[in-house]
Amino acid sequence: MPNNQSRRDFLQKMSGGLTLASLAGSGAFALKTSRLPIDTKKLGVALVGLGSYAKNQLAVALEKTTNCYLAGIVTGTPAKADEWSKKYNLDKKNIYNYQNFDEIAKNKNIDIVYVVLPNSMHKEFVVRAAKAGKHVMCEKPMSTSVKDAEDMIQACKDANVQLGIGYRMHFEPFTKEVIRQCREKVIGDVRFIQTNFGFTIGDPAQWRLKKAMAGGGPLMDVGIYCVQASRYVTGEEPLSVTAQYGPVTEPGIFKDVEQSVSWQLEFPGHTTVNGFSSYRSNIEQLYVSATKGWIQLGPAYGYGPIKGSTNAGPLNLPVVHHQTVMLEEICKSFLESGKFPEHITGPEGLKDMKILMSIYEAAATGKKISLV
Amino acid sequence: MPNNQSRRDFLQKMSGGLTLASLAGSGAFALKTSRLPIDTKKLGVALVGLGSYAKNQLAVALEKTTNCYLAGIVTGTPAKADEWSKKYNLDKKNIYNYQNFDEIAKNKNIDIVYVVLPNSMHKEFVVRAAKAGKHVMCEKPMSTSVKDAEDMIQACKDANVQLGIGYRMHFEPFTKEVIRQCREKVIGDVRFIQTNFGFTIGDPAQWRLKKAMAGGGPLMDVGIYCVQASRYVTGEEPLSVTAQYGPVTEPGIFKDVEQSVSWQLEFPGHTTVNGFSSYRSNIEQLYVSATKGWIQLGPAYGYGPIKGSTNAGPLNLPVVHHQTVMLEEICKSFLESGKFPEHITGPEGLKDMKILMSIYEAAATGKKISLV
Repeated sequence: MPNNQSRRDFLQKMSGGLTLASLAGSGAFALKTSRLPIDTKKLGVALVGLGSYAKNQLAVALEKTTNCYLAGIVTGTPAKADEWSKKYNLDKKNIYNYQNFDEIAKNKNIDIVYVVLPNSMHKEFVVRAAKAGKHVMCEKPMSTSVKDAEDMIQACKDANVQLGIGYRMHFEPFTKEVIRQCREKVIGDVRFIQTNFGFTIGDPAQWRLKKAMAGGGPLMDVGIYCVQASRYVTGEEPLSVTAQYGPVTEPGIFKDVEQSVSWQLEFPGHTTVNGFSSYRSNIEQLYVSATKGWIQLGPAYGYGPIKGSTNAGPLNLPVVHHQTVMLEEICKSFLESGKFPEHITGPEGLKDMKILMSIYEAAATGKKISLV
Repeated sequence: MPNNQSRRDFLQKMSGGLTLASLAGSGAFALKTSRLPIDTKKLGVALVGLGSYAKNQLAVALEKTTNCYLAGIVTGTPAKADEWSKKYNLDKKNIYNYQNFDEIAKNKNIDIVYVVLPNSMHKEFVVRAAKAGKHVMCEKPMSTSVKDAEDMIQACKDANVQLGIGYRMHFEPFTKEVIRQCREKVIGDVRFIQTNFGFTIGDPAQWRLKKAMAGGGPLMDVGIYCVQASRYVTGEEPLSVTAQYGPVTEPGIFKDVEQSVSWQLEFPGHTTVNGFSSYRSNIEQLYVSATKGWIQLGPAYGYGPIKGSTNAGPLNLPVVHHQTVMLEEICKSFLESGKFPEHITGPEGLKDMKILMSIYEAAATGKKISLV
């Protein structure tokens, strides 16, 4: 990572029309089309939606990051605007509501808009951010339908802005070690992956329990981690899926979305993946069985600390703040190359969306759904 | 457990025609119909089939047990007869081959015949042992078809002899603790069970890879532990099953039986069970997620040491030799009540056989199979 001085120089050079290719050793992109700030040492991030994840994780991270900082907020609640404005010493011109949000186009302090709204609102705000010429981070799942995900990708492409999905595990040391050992075949060929993620959901009135806002239940919210994991562990795309809804023990709460769902994915490299997600089981596991050994994480997907071991013993790795390393690395990549890291981009989110929707189709029909 | 003197007295009383009911406080059975030895302090066990499980586990156990001992053998290999005869100082009259086995009827030293042959031979030797008036233990899976299992139960009923299946986990301390915590709802209501058992099978010529002898692949051999576990953890019988065969990476080896299979069981108490068994993954896990906590074993099903933990911390329990405690407890039950423990009897084995066959049907058809 360049230090602040060299980063500023770098950004100034870019604004002058130099191609990044000459600096990064790649001819894949041209600087002229990038929208990079010239007057900041750090990338300015505006959070859209100030719920608990924004408040307790992302805002905390943005106080620690060196490549980016909390530059603005977008909220529909004036009280929150006041509270955050004071707490983070935000300039009033960097505070928007959902109506005047599009004016952010003129705001040079904001480089990246991070959408942390309920799932059904992701599309609207990602598209509006793109049209405002801002790079966009969007929480997972990226949308509530495949079509929306495709539209979001197209909008960002049309606006020539980056689109990233908040897949924080890619930057987490234990997860990275699992990926490394599996991809480098340290434990041989991966044959079987068991991955479960569930928690006991609280407030029965929350948007996560409304299909129109969430797109689905625990599969959309936490099962997506398991689906992601099966893809990043194998480095492959699944061939087919079968799935089963679990029983509903509390029909008053689970009248709109599933209480739990199990699924099975087949991968081209002959890996079987069994997954489960639930709003009524506290569970988070990733277990990989390979021809020469095994590696497992548990807790595997929460905000940490992640713990893990292999057949060779416990994994001793740094415990990090997930959102801090995620934002730091994404912004580092952008500052160095003008791009977000490939594995967290919109098309990767779209792949997950297609699998999630196929899991629902398989569970509803009882049929094996082909993904190729 | 009574000491040897009181046990001998007890057996002598029984042979005199007293009812066990008056001793055991139960009116469910009459002594006159039991076939109990009168001239042994310990029950005499004859092993049928001297493969590695008989040699390395059961014979070892029978040197440690106080309620039973190795009284005889049945083998088709004269060299093994010699070897075992010397090693265990066996009387020649207690050594049989597969042809003269039925003469065991006249042998008062043999109380229990333990069938440790390939699965497809279980039925023949259980039926012959029953007709010879001997109580029978049979290795799991009890048969290669539901019909055979039913015939075996009927034969033992007709002959008024006990039939037990070698379900050793019921006697293993960690497993017993899982059962206790789940049945007593120490961790609340069980909502989800994850259970996987697989190993990398060796010699490609062995009977376990031949469907005619094994009845199936890893599901029959080790998956049965997972199916058993889902029943003893919940204390319920499953309502339905879905299943999927895994990919075949070594078609030369897995031309007759499955390489791996995943399945999902629904239970009436709203528990979802996801299972997996394989001859190409080294894995043995039992994880129970409940409304107030979790409990898990891993290694869960091998010969030990079993290890386990709960949300409250590690389980610190005695490490035992599984086959020793199993035989000791089964024979204790028999000596005290004239019966084998209920949860390892033939009808329990039959329940598993029906589930195993339904898993195969579900995997082959892609359909959800009802079990009720």
